[in-house]
Amino acid sequence: MRLEIWFEFASTYSYLTVSRVQTLLHENQIEYVWRPFLLGPIFRDRGLTTSPFVLDPLRGAYMWRDMERRAKRYGLEFKRPSTFPLNGLNAARIMTAALNEQWCGHFAKLVFEAQFGRGKDISDEAVLKAALSACDVDPDHWFDLSQQEDTKQKLRAFTDKARALGIFGAPSFVVGEELFWGDDRLEDAIEWAMDANRPRQKY
Amino acid sequence: MRLEIWFEFASTYSYLTVSRVQTLLHENQIEYVWRPFLLGPIFRDRGLTTSPFVLDPLRGAYMWRDMERRAKRYGLEFKRPSTFPLNGLNAARIMTAALNEQWCGHFAKLVFEAQFGRGKDISDEAVLKAALSACDVDPDHWFDLSQQEDTKQKLRAFTDKARALGIFGAPSFVVGEELFWGDDRLEDAIEWAMDANRPRQKY
Repeated sequence: MRLEIWFEFASTYSYLTVSRVQTLLHENQIEYVWRPFLLGPIFRDRGLTTSPFVLDPLRGAYMWRDMERRAKRYGLEFKRPSTFPLNGLNAARIMTAALNEQWCGHFAKLVFEAQFGRGKDISDEAVLKAALSACDVDPDHWFDLSQQEDTKQKLRAFTDKARALGIFGAPSFVVGEELFWGDDRLEDAIEWAMDANRPRQKY
Repeated sequence: MRLEIWFEFASTYSYLTVSRVQTLLHENQIEYVWRPFLLGPIFRDRGLTTSPFVLDPLRGAYMWRDMERRAKRYGLEFKRPSTFPLNGLNAARIMTAALNEQWCGHFAKLVFEAQFGRGKDISDEAVLKAALSACDVDPDHWFDLSQQEDTKQKLRAFTDKARALGIFGAPSFVVGEELFWGDDRLEDAIEWAMDANRPRQKY
């Protein structure tokens, strides 16, 4: 069964997922699709003006320490950017425009690695274009495509779909009718996808 | 290094931890202490009138489905009680009174299993006394001890200590100066305890 990877470029835990998910899915021969979306509108629906990690400093401080430890566990570099959350809109638009391209997963990885591995600002066009260049594609061409109305509309539709699926955080994984939230549920989602014929248990 | 198991009897994810933590710690030869505490006062400090899972129905609905799946994964029975959160005060007082007793971990397991495995109300004295009887101890004696002023005071001191440690949810694990939150960080906490000499990384 297909696994949908719902992620937001500004999300810390999405870094962990995007950096490791393709390897895990390939190993387990699971079909997948990338689903970039924006958490901002979903937070606003829920009466939150920004990330819950900013609104709640105690949980925020815990999250950063947890991220350090988890990044280390996964062998990832970690550097906290000076601003959080950063604006991931253009990154998400590029990803949306490139969704059918082989290199789009690599692009996402590079953008996350720039942001949370090296503390770079992903709202900076130069950072995004450097990631595109590292994918061996024309950065100007793809940046232009990302700004076209149909790309913007497609990303809005993803965010609307996320809302309709009951997604409230990132990363989230959808397998059939099942929703899994958080990098720490990626393994659960993979097991669910692998056991597509598992009967739905009633408790 | 010693691992502190901070848990609240009304907490769903504490069920998962209490049901499996002793086996994991014994296997890995890790010294541990139980730290029952009350989340209510900590939630109130943070401006929350009840569990975040009640205040936020979307996250609440997700949590119940996640609990079903995770309980199944761990081979645990799961039945959602008709009321949530239940009042775990007397359960926590009994645990506090019995902290030096060999059977106290078994008592905690039985209370969680009654609540989230069979949907029982753990604010019911009869449910707590049945768990004590199943530990082969005198239920009336231990219930009386649990109501003594020094027991109440000791539990209040645990809750104050939890607050001082920056604990904001249950279960939480403390190893030296490290705080881990959530049943899904139990393995991280265990690894941390096993590697007591791990140098503190700077990122």
